[in-house]
Amino acid sequence: APSGAPPAPRYPRYTREEVGRHRSPQDRVWVTHGTEVFDVTDFVELHPGGADKLLLAAGGPLEPFWALYAVHNQPHVLELLREYKVGELSPEEAPPAPDATQDPFAGDPPRHPALRVNSQKPFNAEPPAELLAERFLTPNELFFTRNHLPVPAVDPGSYRLRVEGPGGRALSLSLAELRSRFPKHEVTATLQCAGNRRTEMSHVRPVKGLAWDIGAISTARWGGARLRDVLLHAGFAEEREGEWHVCFEGLDTDVGGAPYGASIPYGRALSPAADVLLAYEMNGQELPRDHGFPLRVVVPGVVGARSVKWVQRVAVSPAESPSHWQRNDYKGFCPSVDWDTVDYTTAPAIQELPVQSAITHPRPGAAVPEGELTVKGYAWSGGGREVVRVDVSLDGGRTWRVARLAGERPAPGRAWAWVLWELEAPVTAGAELEIVCKAVDGSYNVQPDTMAPIWNLRGVLSNAWHRVRVTVSR
Amino acid sequence: APSGAPPAPRYPRYTREEVGRHRSPQDRVWVTHGTEVFDVTDFVELHPGGADKLLLAAGGPLEPFWALYAVHNQPHVLELLREYKVGELSPEEAPPAPDATQDPFAGDPPRHPALRVNSQKPFNAEPPAELLAERFLTPNELFFTRNHLPVPAVDPGSYRLRVEGPGGRALSLSLAELRSRFPKHEVTATLQCAGNRRTEMSHVRPVKGLAWDIGAISTARWGGARLRDVLLHAGFAEEREGEWHVCFEGLDTDVGGAPYGASIPYGRALSPAADVLLAYEMNGQELPRDHGFPLRVVVPGVVGARSVKWVQRVAVSPAESPSHWQRNDYKGFCPSVDWDTVDYTTAPAIQELPVQSAITHPRPGAAVPEGELTVKGYAWSGGGREVVRVDVSLDGGRTWRVARLAGERPAPGRAWAWVLWELEAPVTAGAELEIVCKAVDGSYNVQPDTMAPIWNLRGVLSNAWHRVRVTVSR
Repeated sequence: APSGAPPAPRYPRYTREEVGRHRSPQDRVWVTHGTEVFDVTDFVELHPGGADKLLLAAGGPLEPFWALYAVHNQPHVLELLREYKVGELSPEEAPPAPDATQDPFAGDPPRHPALRVNSQKPFNAEPPAELLAERFLTPNELFFTRNHLPVPAVDPGSYRLRVEGPGGRALSLSLAELRSRFPKHEVTATLQCAGNRRTEMSHVRPVKGLAWDIGAISTARWGGARLRDVLLHAGFAEEREGEWHVCFEGLDTDVGGAPYGASIPYGRALSPAADVLLAYEMNGQELPRDHGFPLRVVVPGVVGARSVKWVQRVAVSPAESPSHWQRNDYKGFCPSVDWDTVDYTTAPAIQELPVQSAITHPRPGAAVPEGELTVKGYAWSGGGREVVRVDVSLDGGRTWRVARLAGERPAPGRAWAWVLWELEAPVTAGAELEIVCKAVDGSYNVQPDTMAPIWNLRGVLSNAWHRVRVTVSR
Repeated sequence: APSGAPPAPRYPRYTREEVGRHRSPQDRVWVTHGTEVFDVTDFVELHPGGADKLLLAAGGPLEPFWALYAVHNQPHVLELLREYKVGELSPEEAPPAPDATQDPFAGDPPRHPALRVNSQKPFNAEPPAELLAERFLTPNELFFTRNHLPVPAVDPGSYRLRVEGPGGRALSLSLAELRSRFPKHEVTATLQCAGNRRTEMSHVRPVKGLAWDIGAISTARWGGARLRDVLLHAGFAEEREGEWHVCFEGLDTDVGGAPYGASIPYGRALSPAADVLLAYEMNGQELPRDHGFPLRVVVPGVVGARSVKWVQRVAVSPAESPSHWQRNDYKGFCPSVDWDTVDYTTAPAIQELPVQSAITHPRPGAAVPEGELTVKGYAWSGGGREVVRVDVSLDGGRTWRVARLAGERPAPGRAWAWVLWELEAPVTAGAELEIVCKAVDGSYNVQPDTMAPIWNLRGVLSNAWHRVRVTVSR
């Protein structure tokens, strides 16, 4: 043995599965970094970013979270971490190779472990509430993902967008042509799934749909060609009489080969003020595969279902898209309508969404410390209507205070992005609080008080007041 | 005496004041026609149009009502009426001459007696709920009137509209020039006062404002020049960066000479799809004096306060109107804001109104007959958003049914007029019903459940579910 060098300590070896069993202070909180295993249970309450944030990584690797929060990229952080080392990963540990035969979802991309998965195949996941409103722009890795079908594998070199329909000439555009022929237009826009907050509505009566919490909503800076510019280039008119639509088809297809599809009214597609994009960038990067690589539609102020991903075809049509998702889904109904009586022709396809808000902090059931409580959340409305006020109650809606809204005022009628809000209030140990929020938009529309009167069989449009019950600890 | 002719019966003579004391079946129901007085108490329940309609005329002349309902212009109606004759008006009866000295309201026009007067000076009045939704187009005489100041007396021959502001050339237009130089554009639009349904909100806590019931809303077919056409004619640009407004001033002035004023965003004033008018016609007639003779602004989809009457000046401006009614009134606030804490700079001026609906039949406290009950009402939303559904409950909001909407579908985004709706439901003698309605608009915005959480110190934006309690008689 070389003189002077103490022998390296021999740590026990663990599999990732064994690490994964340690996700709470009761079971100990373990994390990995590289091939090392750490028991950070005693550090959880000391974490400068908050115990809740560290617990998001419990049982798995730190790297995906540190990649989002650059403050961790400092030598002293690693030094501090080493104090908690308890083991090494087994040398045979490597990500399991999926069996690609048969499974149409085998080609789906890897995802961030912080996402709360509501469905694996097709992949549907939302950022955890703890991270949702931490930043005005949602990091791409955490942006909520709503896939209806397997993620298509697209070769950007051979990709073409078809544009067609009566009144214009047919186009077939490569990505290079889209980027070079049309000015790049950037829009900061929030997308929200029609099913956001469905879980709360399902507490009234069961509904059919994915059990979204409050995170089926995210915000990005989108860059791309204006749909208007492409349609004008193809010779389509600025305005058109009648109920013409612009239909979109994705490259994602069902087992029978039918693509995902949706449409928006012609006037919105052509309006310079509506900012509809054929986007190839998301927060300054090329689109991630889960968000439509290499090209997607972004329709600001409108339900996410119309912002078709992996778009391959834009078709001007005298009627709305014949797609299942346009005609027989994503519509609202009276609470009295059930699966025996529903008639999808009687309700309009959801386009603009109603005013919405939710509390991201504290979380339901939390014990918050006495003193000054900071309540945080988001608010947004469809159609570019600005959120002009958020009211917060700590007593279930009997009395209200006005929250502080972050950010600058948007251009009139183009408030495409959410606002993040905060309210500070003193709270007393032992109190049980029912925290409630409700937003008001520029047309002075408000959220309804309760879910039961807006209940619908698909659990969409769930925008009643958000209520969070917490206790105050000493 | 000539042979054969019986002497004319000698009827007692009554003053109008004496007739006016007979307004209910308890006091007997008297009406006048010409100089004759009739006791129609025994006919009230036989009235083909309904007892409630006949009672609107109780204590006064029939002529203003018959003028609206032409079915009365038949010989057999007068014959039938003669059976109930009980007297003649005293020969000295004539409308009292107002003392014009001092009273700035002395020049106000005569009004229809069916209007429910909330304030005589300035004149503020609404059609009774029984007549409100009888017709899709509100008769001019019954259209709700919201005056802030005395009605100006305008000589149409010397009238001029001034148009001015940076970016265009100043115009001075006579009525003849407005009619001849610009195409006549017609729009069917509902106007609603921000204070409609204030009385219900004041039941939560007192508010400051006129005690409007559900009738501060009416619909007319407006005809005039498009504001857009006039502004383009003056050289103003189609679009303009920033928060430019188009300001309106009326010829109605306060004691200090300051006119009524308001403004709308530049983009709305110039938008061809927004249909903003400088209107000189209302339901095919020239504007009545109470509604802005000879010219008024009509801003479809926007609170009535911006549709300035007796408009004398249109001014393009980099800021919104400095008027009291733009800056320090007609805004919404959190329920916690009171007259000690209100800061009018913190809330936007109301422009588009939120979704609204109300029940016009039956009336609160009514005893409705058992069997098939027909519930009727109106629904409307601001910003041209179409009403897509009205839900009606007979049990206070626990269960809901879908009402039948009358009329045709409007052009997308241009649903400027209300919809009238009906629901038939069987009801059982002895039942106590709490009838509730709530509307859904094309952006799937809904009305809030209750008034307390949207209470505000001025009692505006009162759009919670409308509730009417009735009993069912045998």
